[in-house]
Amino acid sequence: MKLTKLLTVLLFVISFYSLNAQSGYRKEIKIPDIPGYKTLKCDFHSHTIFSDGAVWPTFRIGEAWHDGLDAIAITDHIEYQPHKDYIPTNHNAAYEIGKNLAIELGLILIHGSEITREMPPGHFNAIFITDANALVKDDWRDAIKEAVKQGGLVFWNHPGWKGQQPDGAPRWYDEHTYLYENKLIAGIEVVNGSEYYPKVLGWCLEKNLAIIGNSDVHNTINYEYRNSRRPITLVFAKEKSSAGIKDAILNKRTAIFFDGKIFGRETFLEPLFKSSIQFASTDVKTVGRENANIEVINNSDVDFELRLVNVDDTIRFPDYIKLLAGTSMMFHVRARKDNTDVNKKYSVVYAVENAITGADKKLNVTLDFNVRVTPKK
Amino acid sequence: MKLTKLLTVLLFVISFYSLNAQSGYRKEIKIPDIPGYKTLKCDFHSHTIFSDGAVWPTFRIGEAWHDGLDAIAITDHIEYQPHKDYIPTNHNAAYEIGKNLAIELGLILIHGSEITREMPPGHFNAIFITDANALVKDDWRDAIKEAVKQGGLVFWNHPGWKGQQPDGAPRWYDEHTYLYENKLIAGIEVVNGSEYYPKVLGWCLEKNLAIIGNSDVHNTINYEYRNSRRPITLVFAKEKSSAGIKDAILNKRTAIFFDGKIFGRETFLEPLFKSSIQFASTDVKTVGRENANIEVINNSDVDFELRLVNVDDTIRFPDYIKLLAGTSMMFHVRARKDNTDVNKKYSVVYAVENAITGADKKLNVTLDFNVRVTPKK
Amino acid sequence: MKLTKLLTVLLFVISFYSLNAQSGYRKEIKIPDIPGYKTLKCDFHSHTIFSDGAVWPTFRIGEAWHDGLDAIAITDHIEYQPHKDYIPTNHNAAYEIGKNLAIELGLILIHGSEITREMPPGHFNAIFITDANALVKDDWRDAIKEAVKQGGLVFWNHPGWKGQQPDGAPRWYDEHTYLYENKLIAGIEVVNGSEYYPKVLGWCLEKNLAIIGNSDVHNTINYEYRNSRRPITLVFAKEKSSAGIKDAILNKRTAIFFDGKIFGRETFLEPLFKSSIQFASTDVKTVGRENANIEVINNSDVDFELRLVNVDDTIRFPDYIKLLAGTSMMFHVRARKDNTDVNKKYSVVYAVENAITGADKKLNVTLDFNVRVTPKK
Amino acid sequence: MKLTKLLTVLLFVISFYSLNAQSGYRKEIKIPDIPGYKTLKCDFHSHTIFSDGAVWPTFRIGEAWHDGLDAIAITDHIEYQPHKDYIPTNHNAAYEIGKNLAIELGLILIHGSEITREMPPGHFNAIFITDANALVKDDWRDAIKEAVKQGGLVFWNHPGWKGQQPDGAPRWYDEHTYLYENKLIAGIEVVNGSEYYPKVLGWCLEKNLAIIGNSDVHNTINYEYRNSRRPITLVFAKEKSSAGIKDAILNKRTAIFFDGKIFGRETFLEPLFKSSIQFASTDVKTVGRENANIEVINNSDVDFELRLVNVDDTIRFPDYIKLLAGTSMMFHVRARKDNTDVNKKYSVVYAVENAITGADKKLNVTLDFNVRVTPKK
Repeated sequence: MKLTKLLTVLLFVISFYSLNAQSGYRKEIKIPDIPGYKTLKCDFHSHTIFSDGAVWPTFRIGEAWHDGLDAIAITDHIEYQPHKDYIPTNHNAAYEIGKNLAIELGLILIHGSEITREMPPGHFNAIFITDANALVKDDWRDAIKEAVKQGGLVFWNHPGWKGQQPDGAPRWYDEHTYLYENKLIAGIEVVNGSEYYPKVLGWCLEKNLAIIGNSDVHNTINYEYRNSRRPITLVFAKEKSSAGIKDAILNKRTAIFFDGKIFGRETFLEPLFKSSIQFASTDVKTVGRENANIEVINNSDVDFELRLVNVDDTIRFPDYIKLLAGTSMMFHVRARKDNTDVNKKYSVVYAVENAITGADKKLNVTLDFNVRVTPKK
Repeated sequence: MKLTKLLTVLLFVISFYSLNAQSGYRKEIKIPDIPGYKTLKCDFHSHTIFSDGAVWPTFRIGEAWHDGLDAIAITDHIEYQPHKDYIPTNHNAAYEIGKNLAIELGLILIHGSEITREMPPGHFNAIFITDANALVKDDWRDAIKEAVKQGGLVFWNHPGWKGQQPDGAPRWYDEHTYLYENKLIAGIEVVNGSEYYPKVLGWCLEKNLAIIGNSDVHNTINYEYRNSRRPITLVFAKEKSSAGIKDAILNKRTAIFFDGKIFGRETFLEPLFKSSIQFASTDVKTVGRENANIEVINNSDVDFELRLVNVDDTIRFPDYIKLLAGTSMMFHVRARKDNTDVNKKYSVVYAVENAITGADKKLNVTLDFNVRVTPKK
Repeated sequence: MKLTKLLTVLLFVISFYSLNAQSGYRKEIKIPDIPGYKTLKCDFHSHTIFSDGAVWPTFRIGEAWHDGLDAIAITDHIEYQPHKDYIPTNHNAAYEIGKNLAIELGLILIHGSEITREMPPGHFNAIFITDANALVKDDWRDAIKEAVKQGGLVFWNHPGWKGQQPDGAPRWYDEHTYLYENKLIAGIEVVNGSEYYPKVLGWCLEKNLAIIGNSDVHNTINYEYRNSRRPITLVFAKEKSSAGIKDAILNKRTAIFFDGKIFGRETFLEPLFKSSIQFASTDVKTVGRENANIEVINNSDVDFELRLVNVDDTIRFPDYIKLLAGTSMMFHVRARKDNTDVNKKYSVVYAVENAITGADKKLNVTLDFNVRVTPKK
Repeated sequence: MKLTKLLTVLLFVISFYSLNAQSGYRKEIKIPDIPGYKTLKCDFHSHTIFSDGAVWPTFRIGEAWHDGLDAIAITDHIEYQPHKDYIPTNHNAAYEIGKNLAIELGLILIHGSEITREMPPGHFNAIFITDANALVKDDWRDAIKEAVKQGGLVFWNHPGWKGQQPDGAPRWYDEHTYLYENKLIAGIEVVNGSEYYPKVLGWCLEKNLAIIGNSDVHNTINYEYRNSRRPITLVFAKEKSSAGIKDAILNKRTAIFFDGKIFGRETFLEPLFKSSIQFASTDVKTVGRENANIEVINNSDVDFELRLVNVDDTIRFPDYIKLLAGTSMMFHVRARKDNTDVNKKYSVVYAVENAITGADKKLNVTLDFNVRVTPKK
C-alpha cells in the first residue's frame, strides 16, 4: 500500500477496504432481533492516539465495521494525554476525523469522551455529546453536568478496575449516590475488557440503570481479543439510528454479549434465546423405550448450554444439551419405561447456563412439546 | 485496559505484553542460520500516524516483536503528511518514541524515512540515518545525498507500483542510472506488500544490488496479511546488530521470504534449503521392486516443493515431493525392475519450485544417497 | 467411549452424536435453492471396509450428516475386495448396516455399488439399485444391464484416472458409445476426488449427460480433505427425496461444487449465483467523481470472483470484485469525468471466474443498476 | 483415490501418505526428553471394526503416526463384538493386518486386547501379549492370568466410567485387591477419553502402580477430539522400543498429557518442566523501581501456567505467568522500593497449575536468579 493523492478522510477508507481486499469485508454478528426491537451491536468505549490509544480514528471505525458492529463511540480521555508532546490537545479530533468514513460505511459513530478522575468517583464515559472540549472542567461534577447539558448520556466505567480498587471489588461511594439521585448517570459498565463485575449487574437491576459492556480497546481488537470476541452492548432499539440507541439506553433496553455469555434482564434474554433457536418439530412420537430424535438449529453466534431443571417421571429429556453456534444437532428423548402410554403437552424447563440474569441467576426457558408415547407390544 | 500512571514510553509496553497476556508473546520465524551467518528477519518499510499510517510507533515495534522479527525500520514519508492538520511535523518523532521499547524487547529499530517523489525517480527508503528532518530538500538528489552523508543506505521502493507505473511494469530511468553510477543506492525492493517484480530481481543480479522485500505496512499486519505473512528481508549477518545488518546489505547478503517463496541469490538459497531439511538416513536399501522408505524432516517455516529434474534408469524417486513446514514425511524409492543389482552413490537433483533465484530461474538442489538394491530371488 | 449394551445399528449413532458432543453437530452447506428447485448436496461415490475403504458404514453416514450433505451413496467395489481374508463377501452389507442410522438422521442413503473393470470400459457406479449381489457378472455389459433392470442409474467414474489412463487424458472408447447408444449411462464424473476433467465437462454438454462430482472417499473426509471440502454434486430437485434426486439426474439438473468452483450448465449456475448474492440497493447516486458505495452480501459458502467484461465510457465499475463467503463488502463506483450528467439504467457484465460452464467457458452475469450522476458544481 | 493393484497390507499405506499428500505428514508432539530417558508418546487403548470401532486397523496406525505418537496398542474387546454378523471372530486380526505398516512407519505397534467384564472387576487392557485368541476364558481371572503368562502387562480401564459406576465414583473392590496382591495388574487408567479420575491418581501413588492415560478411541481422533488432543501416556524409556516401553511401565516411569495438563509423579514432572523451559538469562539487574525484563522460551507443546508461591519483601515477581507453547515471552521484575540495594541469589517458587502430582497437589518449581538491585540516585 502506498501514498495516494486523496483527501485525508478518505485515505483510510481506501487502504481499508479497497486496496487490500482481504481486509475490506464485514462479517455480521448473528444475534437476532427480538419482537418489537432491532438488536444493535455496539461498543461505547474505545481509544485512539488522541489519548492513550495506539490507532488513528479511521482505523477504529474500519475495524468496527469489519467486526460487524452497528455503532461505536470513541471516548478518548479528557484528563490523560500521554502523547501530548507530539499531538496538540483537541478532544473533538477523533470524532471530526472519523465521521465521514462512518457515514460511508453506514456505521453509527457516537461522539464521546472519557472523564477520567481519581476514585471516587472514577472514570465516566459521556456519549451523545456535541463538544468534548467543553468537558474540560476542574470539578468532575461540572464535567458531567456539561455532558448532560449537551444532551449526553453518562455511564460509570469499570467500577472494579484494580487500578482504582486494588482488591477488584466495586464500591459505591457517596459521589455515586450524588450522580444517581441527580439523574446524572444512565448506566454502569458491568463488563469492561476482560472483566465482569457480578455485583454491578445486581446494582443495575436494583437501581434500574442500563447494563453496559464495552471493550475499552486501546491497541487493536485483533491484539486484545486474539482468540475471543470483544465485549459488546446489545441495544434493543426501535430503529437503527443514533436516536434509537439513545432511547434504548434511557429505557434500559440493553444486554451484554461477552465471553460466550449473554448478561441482561430476563425480559430481553428470553426472547433473544427463543429467536436464536428453532426446532424442526415439537411433536415427539415414540414407541416403548425407543429414542425419538429432536432436531434443533441454532442460528445465532452464541453457543447455548442448557441444563435440565424439571424431571418428568414418564419421559426423559437429556440432562445437558449444548447448542453450538450456527449448527443443527439432534438429541434423544425417550420413555422411562416400556409400557408408557401418554399423549400430553409437555413443558420441559432448562436453565441456560450462559444467559446470566442476575449476580447469581441464570435464565430458565420453557420448551413446549406434544408428546405421544405408545407402549411397546 | 485503562489509564496507567507510567511514563509515555512505557505505556504501550505494558498494554502490549503485560496487561493483555494473549498478545504479549513472540513466535519465532523458523528460518535457520546458514554456515557463517545468522539469518535475521527484517522489515525495512513501515508507516505510522506520523505520515499516512494508522498506528502509533510503539504499536509497530510490539507488532514486529510479536511476529518474530529481529529488526524493523519505520519509514514515514517526508513529503506526504495527510495528518498534518492534527500532528505537527517532526520526521524523527516515530524513532524517538519507539527506541526505548525496542531496546527493552531486544528488537533492532533502524532509523529511517521515505523520500517520496514523483516517478522518476519515485520513492526511496533511507535507513540507518541519524536525522530525518535534514532530508527535507527541494531536490531529491540532495535528499538522497544527505541520507548517504549521514551514513544511511538508500533503496528504491516498489518500482512497479501502479500508482506510478499504471501498467505495473518497472522502468529504469536516467535518474536511476545517476543514483547507481554515483553509488547512491544499495538495493531495490523486489517485493513490496503483495507485489513481486521479477524484472527487478534480474536488475539486482545484473547490477549487484541488494535484494529487498518489505511489507510497507500502513494499517496493522493483522489486517493487511490476514491469512498470510508479511514479506520480510532475510539478512545473512555476521552478528545480530544494526551494524551487522548494514554490513550484510552492503555486501548483498540478503534474500526475501514472501508468499511461501524464497527469492534470492543461489549462494544463499542453497545453504538455506540444506539447513532447513534433514534426512533420517541417506542409506537406501531395498530388494526387488519393494519400496524403500525415506524419512525427511522440514524444521523450517517454509513449505518446500520439489520437482524431479534428473531421471535414473535403475532407481525411481518421486516426481514431486512437498515438504510441509514443521513436519516429517516419508516418501518411497524403488528399483525400476525386479532384477536390479546396484550398489552406488546416487545424486538425485530436484528443482525447488518455490526457491526463486532469478527472473525465471529456480534453485536446483542435489541430494546424495547411498543406494543398495539387490534383485528379488 | 466404552461398550454399551445397545443394538448394533444404534451403537454408532450413540458414539457419534451423543457421547461425544463435539462431533454430533451438523453444519449446513450454504448453497441456496434456485427458483423451482431445492439444491441438494450429494456425494454418490464412497467406500467402506466392505471393499477397500477404511471405515465402517455408519461412520460414512454420520460423517456425511455432519458435513451438511443431504444424500450419499456407498459404492463398494464388486470386483475388488482386498479385505476378503477377514470379511466374507456381501455386497449389500454396507447398505443394510447403514440404512437405519440414515433414517434417524434424515439423510438419504442411496443403495449403490461400483462395477470395477479394466479400461475400457473402466469403472462405473450403479446407484438406486436394489441388490448389489446380483451385479456379480462375468461380462460388464451384463452387470450394467442388471443395474438398469433394478431401476438403477449408472455413471462412468473418473475417466481420466492415471491408474487407467497413464497420461491422465480421458478417452471415449467404442464401449462407451455402446453404453451411450443403449441409454445405459446417465452421466459421467467430471470431478473425482482432487481431479477435474475439463474435456469430460464438454462431453456431458454435447451428449446431454448428467454432470457428476464425487469424493470417492476411502479413508475419512477429514484426512483426505484436510484444508478443503469434498467435491459434491449439487442436485436441483423438485423434492428432497431419493425419487427427487433420481428425477433430477435423469433430467440433467446437476452441477458440481469443488475446489471453490461451481461447474455446470449456465441454466443452473446463473440462478445459483443470483440467489447467493444480494445488493443493499441497486440505485447508484453520485456527484462529480465522488465514490458511490455499493454494498453487497454473499450469503453462500462460495467465494465468488468477478472480472469486469463490459466497459462503460461514463461510469467506472471495479475491474475485479471478490465476494467472500458469508460476508458483506462495499465497492466503489464513480464517474470517469467531473462533468458527467447521466440518469440511466446500466447493465454491468461480469465474468464469474469460478463458475465454469464449459471446458473453457465461464458464466457471465449481468447486474442492473439505476445510475444517477450529476456534475460537480 | 481408486483401486490399486498392490497387496492388501500396502493399500492403506499408499492411500494414506502417498496419493493424498495433505494427509501423509507427521507432526511431532513437542514434549522433551528428560535426563536419562526418552519421553515416548503412547496411546495404549484403541478400537477397530474388529470389535466396536469404526475404522480398519491400518487407519489407526496411520492416524497415530500422523499425530506424532511413538507407540499404540489396538485393544479390541474380547467379549463384545457387535459386528460379528458381518465379521468372523479373530482377536488377532487387527494386529496381523497392522504390523507391516507400523514397521514401515517406524511406529511401535503393541499387541493388545480388552478383557471386557461386568464390574467388578470391570474392563482391563492386556498389552504386550502374543495371542489374543487365547484370552477367551470363562473366568476373568483366567483371562488375566493367560495375558500375564504370555508376558503381557495388564491395566484396569476407566474405573469411574458411568456405564459401570452410575455415580462416576471409582470403587476399589475385593477383585482388585486380588489382582493387586497377586501382582496381576501393572497400572490403572487415571485418564480415559475425556474423563480424569483424581481419586485413581491417588491410588496409583499409594499402591505404586503405573499412571496410564489413553484415548479409548472408537471413531477417529479427528471426530472425537476436534478441538483438542487425544490423551496420551508419556513413557520415560531407556530406549525407543517395545521392550523399553514395557520396562518403563513396570518401573512406573509414566505420566499423562491430557486437556492441557500433565499428570504424574513429581520425580518426572519436575525435569519435564525444566526441560521445556529456557531462560535467556538468569541475571536480573535493575535500578530503583525500574522493570528488569526476563525473557523465557517455552519449547514444548504445553501451555504452562505459573502462580507465585513465595513472596519476597524486596523484589517483586509476577503473581501469574502463562508460558504459551512454542513462544517466548517477557515478564517484569522490579524492586518494591526506590532505595533497595541487594545483591543476592534469589529462588522464586511457582506452582505449575497444570502439572498435577496428586489427587489435590500441583507441582512446585524453584527458579534461581542472581538479583542485583541498586537504589535510584
